[in-house]
Amino acid sequence: MEKLKSTLEKIAPPDRELEKEAQNYLDSLTKPVGSLGILEEIARKIAGITGELKPKCPQKACILMAGDHGVVAEGVSAYPQEVTPQMVLNFLSGGAAMNVLSRHAGAELIVVDIGVAADLPDDPILLKRKVAYGTNNFAKGPAMTREQAVAALEVGIEVAEDCIKRGASLLGTGEMGIGNTTPSAAITAFYKQCDAREVCGFGTGLNEDLLQQKVKVVEKAIAINQPQADDTLDVLAKIGGLEIAGMAGVMLAAAANRKPVMIDGFISSAAALIAAHLHPHAVDYMLASHLSEEPGHAIALEMLGIKPFLRMNMRLGEGTGAALAMPIVDASLKIMHEMSTFADAGISTSLV
Amino acid sequence: MEKLKSTLEKIAPPDRELEKEAQNYLDSLTKPVGSLGILEEIARKIAGITGELKPKCPQKACILMAGDHGVVAEGVSAYPQEVTPQMVLNFLSGGAAMNVLSRHAGAELIVVDIGVAADLPDDPILLKRKVAYGTNNFAKGPAMTREQAVAALEVGIEVAEDCIKRGASLLGTGEMGIGNTTPSAAITAFYKQCDAREVCGFGTGLNEDLLQQKVKVVEKAIAINQPQADDTLDVLAKIGGLEIAGMAGVMLAAAANRKPVMIDGFISSAAALIAAHLHPHAVDYMLASHLSEEPGHAIALEMLGIKPFLRMNMRLGEGTGAALAMPIVDASLKIMHEMSTFADAGISTSLV
Repeated sequence: MEKLKSTLEKIAPPDRELEKEAQNYLDSLTKPVGSLGILEEIARKIAGITGELKPKCPQKACILMAGDHGVVAEGVSAYPQEVTPQMVLNFLSGGAAMNVLSRHAGAELIVVDIGVAADLPDDPILLKRKVAYGTNNFAKGPAMTREQAVAALEVGIEVAEDCIKRGASLLGTGEMGIGNTTPSAAITAFYKQCDAREVCGFGTGLNEDLLQQKVKVVEKAIAINQPQADDTLDVLAKIGGLEIAGMAGVMLAAAANRKPVMIDGFISSAAALIAAHLHPHAVDYMLASHLSEEPGHAIALEMLGIKPFLRMNMRLGEGTGAALAMPIVDASLKIMHEMSTFADAGISTSLV
Repeated sequence: MEKLKSTLEKIAPPDRELEKEAQNYLDSLTKPVGSLGILEEIARKIAGITGELKPKCPQKACILMAGDHGVVAEGVSAYPQEVTPQMVLNFLSGGAAMNVLSRHAGAELIVVDIGVAADLPDDPILLKRKVAYGTNNFAKGPAMTREQAVAALEVGIEVAEDCIKRGASLLGTGEMGIGNTTPSAAITAFYKQCDAREVCGFGTGLNEDLLQQKVKVVEKAIAINQPQADDTLDVLAKIGGLEIAGMAGVMLAAAANRKPVMIDGFISSAAALIAAHLHPHAVDYMLASHLSEEPGHAIALEMLGIKPFLRMNMRLGEGTGAALAMPIVDASLKIMHEMSTFADAGISTSLV
């Protein structure tokens, strides 16, 4: 609890003056004002986050949190639970989509066993930080104890701070966990106070019957557990997941250390909702990446007030959308470093 | 006319069998079927285009066509015409957004003076292929002669084929030309048979009055010139532009040589409409990139049937959206090369 408390105390608003200065500089570059759209927004936001007008292109780390979910007993997933450890082994051997896309982004990939319901082998890129062998079935009671939720948040904080100590200046968040769109739907429906069917999607391959079952399970989880809206740890413990807590911890550590952190898909956005409810300025350090096919994703991002810019129709998770968006962050910073101003280029600005 | 004719004759449909084979291979990789969305679509499309199941990451070239427009005399632009040559000089000195983003993409940038209304200095990255000192004011008569339209198309074909000969296997299309959203709006409204106000936007910085003027000019251009819908060269000559013709030529050369070509913003999409009307299979070789802020862009892309995947709120042109999207093409090909299959990874596929 100490680690979480001290991290939350460190989080401050970004530098709003430097954001303005960055926009003024962008407006002096040889292009119509605002014409680079979200590239300008990213550059401006990163200036405020880092406190540097023109930070260099970031060293990137993608943190992939893996955990299992007791709620799969309710038949809410198209895949059996053993796919979670199988996919972790696939990450370790380098053959998953997330391996390919983090290499493409030039990002280090760190895989964390924060709650897989199986023992995993030792491996240089696997951090063994298991808080439990999966969560409990939240259709029958709380997913975790409050202590487990805090422990998982603190694993996320520690893993992220270790990356930052080793030089990372842009973090990506990703996950693996069969069944984890169900707690993500529960968290999103709870905070949005909307009908569960608005936030439940086909996950990684449900049919219509399984989707109906998922909606019922989400409704039941909220009804049985009665999470307390003014107590974020209660929400996380009762209807969250270990990897969701871990990702929220990564986001809090990024904010506390003034580093940008990229949100991925629906599960990552549910974690972002937890982080944003733990500290109101956490969201100022988040960058959206893609908009996934899960209907709850757009709802969660809208609540967070961050705007996705990749529309790839992806629905894989793992952090793939965040990794795919990382080169665009580099592009936005290169605009700050490399473009000429109107004055430099001697271009008429009479009508700008 | 010979060059254009022989290029059109070379264009054939892509390899549909290889597209299917590519999708079958994608479905064998360790991810839910279809979960990489547009990354899969790009990989599949490029297999069909190139005739290779797993082509290597492409050598990239961005071709930026610069030309002026007589119609600026009608007051349809926020910038004076002299900004066109000033911006060309900015491209030559390396300080424009397109220089930054093509470097970021690892793409060669080739700037072509196909119709700037000023003389330009010699420079290693400038190709001097001027067809005319800008177009005529199409609010008063045809923008070009039919011969000029063909000459400009052939410049595009020749420049693209030269890039391809030097090894380029992914082409980007971009442009510079004060006033060029106006002919783009005219082409799009003409083919869509819609009201001019549906396709006219604020360009690089119009106010509401100038926007109304632009709508009137587009209506007048179509009414006065009466382009013949079944004669694409007539449409291009009467209500097009030199750089639009040049870009259409680049797209035709890409199709004739089985290389993918990236469409950029609204002006590039208007050129794509011309190319698609010159040959029905030209569009099979096009990849969309971003969706710009110009309202006509979405309309043009919808007519073409290609789907943009970057939503950056950009409205700069130059080819910047195409360049920014190029790393995503690399990512899609790396998925084909580097991911494990379910069989390799020993993962349960019982419910896939």
